[in-house]
Amino acid sequence: MSATATTERVFNFSAGPAVLPVSVLQEVQDELLCLPGAGASVMELSHRGKVFIEIMEQAEASIRSLLGISDQYAVLFLQGGAALQFSMIPANLLRDSGKSAQYLLTGAWGKKAIGEAKKEGTVDTIYSAAESNFDRVPTSSDYQVKDDAAYLYYCSNETIQGVQFQSEPACPDNVPLISDASSDFLSRPLDIDKYGLIYACAQKNAGPAGVTVVIIRRDLLAKGCDKLPGYLLYRNHAENESMWNTPPTFPIYVLGKVAKWLTNDIGGLAAMESQNREKAKLLYDVIDKHAGFYLGHAQVDCRSTMNATFNLPSEDLLASFVAEASKNGLQNLKGHRSVGGIRASVYNAMPREGAQALASFMDDFAKKNG
Amino acid sequence: MSATATTERVFNFSAGPAVLPVSVLQEVQDELLCLPGAGASVMELSHRGKVFIEIMEQAEASIRSLLGISDQYAVLFLQGGAALQFSMIPANLLRDSGKSAQYLLTGAWGKKAIGEAKKEGTVDTIYSAAESNFDRVPTSSDYQVKDDAAYLYYCSNETIQGVQFQSEPACPDNVPLISDASSDFLSRPLDIDKYGLIYACAQKNAGPAGVTVVIIRRDLLAKGCDKLPGYLLYRNHAENESMWNTPPTFPIYVLGKVAKWLTNDIGGLAAMESQNREKAKLLYDVIDKHAGFYLGHAQVDCRSTMNATFNLPSEDLLASFVAEASKNGLQNLKGHRSVGGIRASVYNAMPREGAQALASFMDDFAKKNG
Repeated sequence: MSATATTERVFNFSAGPAVLPVSVLQEVQDELLCLPGAGASVMELSHRGKVFIEIMEQAEASIRSLLGISDQYAVLFLQGGAALQFSMIPANLLRDSGKSAQYLLTGAWGKKAIGEAKKEGTVDTIYSAAESNFDRVPTSSDYQVKDDAAYLYYCSNETIQGVQFQSEPACPDNVPLISDASSDFLSRPLDIDKYGLIYACAQKNAGPAGVTVVIIRRDLLAKGCDKLPGYLLYRNHAENESMWNTPPTFPIYVLGKVAKWLTNDIGGLAAMESQNREKAKLLYDVIDKHAGFYLGHAQVDCRSTMNATFNLPSEDLLASFVAEASKNGLQNLKGHRSVGGIRASVYNAMPREGAQALASFMDDFAKKNG
Repeated sequence: MSATATTERVFNFSAGPAVLPVSVLQEVQDELLCLPGAGASVMELSHRGKVFIEIMEQAEASIRSLLGISDQYAVLFLQGGAALQFSMIPANLLRDSGKSAQYLLTGAWGKKAIGEAKKEGTVDTIYSAAESNFDRVPTSSDYQVKDDAAYLYYCSNETIQGVQFQSEPACPDNVPLISDASSDFLSRPLDIDKYGLIYACAQKNAGPAGVTVVIIRRDLLAKGCDKLPGYLLYRNHAENESMWNTPPTFPIYVLGKVAKWLTNDIGGLAAMESQNREKAKLLYDVIDKHAGFYLGHAQVDCRSTMNATFNLPSEDLLASFVAEASKNGLQNLKGHRSVGGIRASVYNAMPREGAQALASFMDDFAKKNG
């Protein structure tokens, strides 16, 4: 690696695909042309060869260890992103079940998931934060789950709105709890035993785009119908240990390195959560300090540790904020095109210095323009 | 790149994921930590940012130029591999059409495609090479396509059996011709206007695993039903220029570099085909020279330029062939677990020296053991 290449790097607040640990990128770079002992790039290896099988097994073992996942659960590496999960979940667990699926709607991704679920069966949106423009998540008294529901679905962190469940929503014991954890996966410890299924596309906290991790309780694997398109049937992937067809080998390889980095360099998910809280606090503190200038979107107790969303008093100030930040090496801060404003994503791999640099810039900008 | 890393590389005859051009790997390595001008690794870039959009547009432009694809066709970059195409094709073009789909069955991949299509509607296997253990492809007199068929489907190169269509099968004008070109895509020029849809997972000739290129005639985009899972509807991807959801950014980036290599370094697909024919001839010539010792699987006029498949007189000789080849830096020659024998894959990026080294080894081995 050349010094130039390192120093060119900016602080990248992209919402996803997003920042990756530099040490992981360096390892990938070193091994890119020839993986030690393999005689070829990892991209050139058969997925059924010993070397790649070990890579995938190691990635799975690291994720199992980080989250404390028991053998009651299968861990799958799939393609198609969260968007395909929006369909696979109801196709496997709702279609022809005679039951209804219950959804908590707290943002843009939940809305898309509901749209796909409705194609497969009866869907009840038992909570919606639409009225308050998706600035909050529910408490347990805000909704009621049917005892015989097919499942209860929620999105643990809505990247576009920047709202996050601080813990799992209440759910009857016999109803499988399903979470889209795409944007906070591996950012904090979880009690996996609470879930029926939890999934995440990798490109926020866990790796590059192109691989989606699905953790599914094994009893749910029996539910999908054999007439489903084969790729959509969880059972096929579980029975073949994610080798039902060729898995996305390179994204899985990088994901495995990120999981190893979380284990060895960070010290596990509790340590990661503590760092993430600290980084988010740097940003929210400056938003609160300049309340009225920075208009935070989420209710304080629902704020995301991953994506801080806020607006500025005018479109002109917003444009100059983005432009000046960019000049200072603080990139990709524009909010999602559907909501505007600013979105600062401070995922696992965003170093504390990045969050600190942005917070200082925000403080200065508010003082100058407030 | 260190000299060590280069010299460690072996000749990799893997059937896929498979060998990539060294110059492409070197470029990827150089840019891995920081894409020039982007301030971040290509893996860290938002798919909706200017830099990545240009990468994807350039990849598409190169593929369009190499194959001469007119604007009558959409070029899509999808996930899920060929396996998901096995379902997407009949889900979009057969389901509820009142028509039947016609399949030419010449090997293992065609068989899987038929299995998925039967879930979606009426399927006629109008030709099967099963009786001769899939050693051939049909001539136009071997089958008859219904005039009102939903489509005619074939797999242009069956990797496991090593049989390849030398040109497109005859097909009535009004029936869309559909090809699984996964293992010979970009290995030779094609007349795209003959096709309704042609697709290929990238991990043979075109890039790493995790991206599938689908070239679809635009009139066929109207056919899928809105009730399909959103990811499965070609129209969604075409209307959003492969950004209906986050595309597999890194695999697309590498695919674009391979397409550029084919254009600039190789000189286009006619030149590539000529090199591929030459490489394959080296292997088939030695098989024919030692006929009786090497037992070629495919009929001579159906031999694949991509995958040479053959057996040896005994399991012992087979095992020592694989072991000795490996000692000589000739790797991944074992045939697919379903058929045994030897499979030597000599895709685009396999250098002539690799094919020559294998041919020499085969000649020596036959002389010593024949």
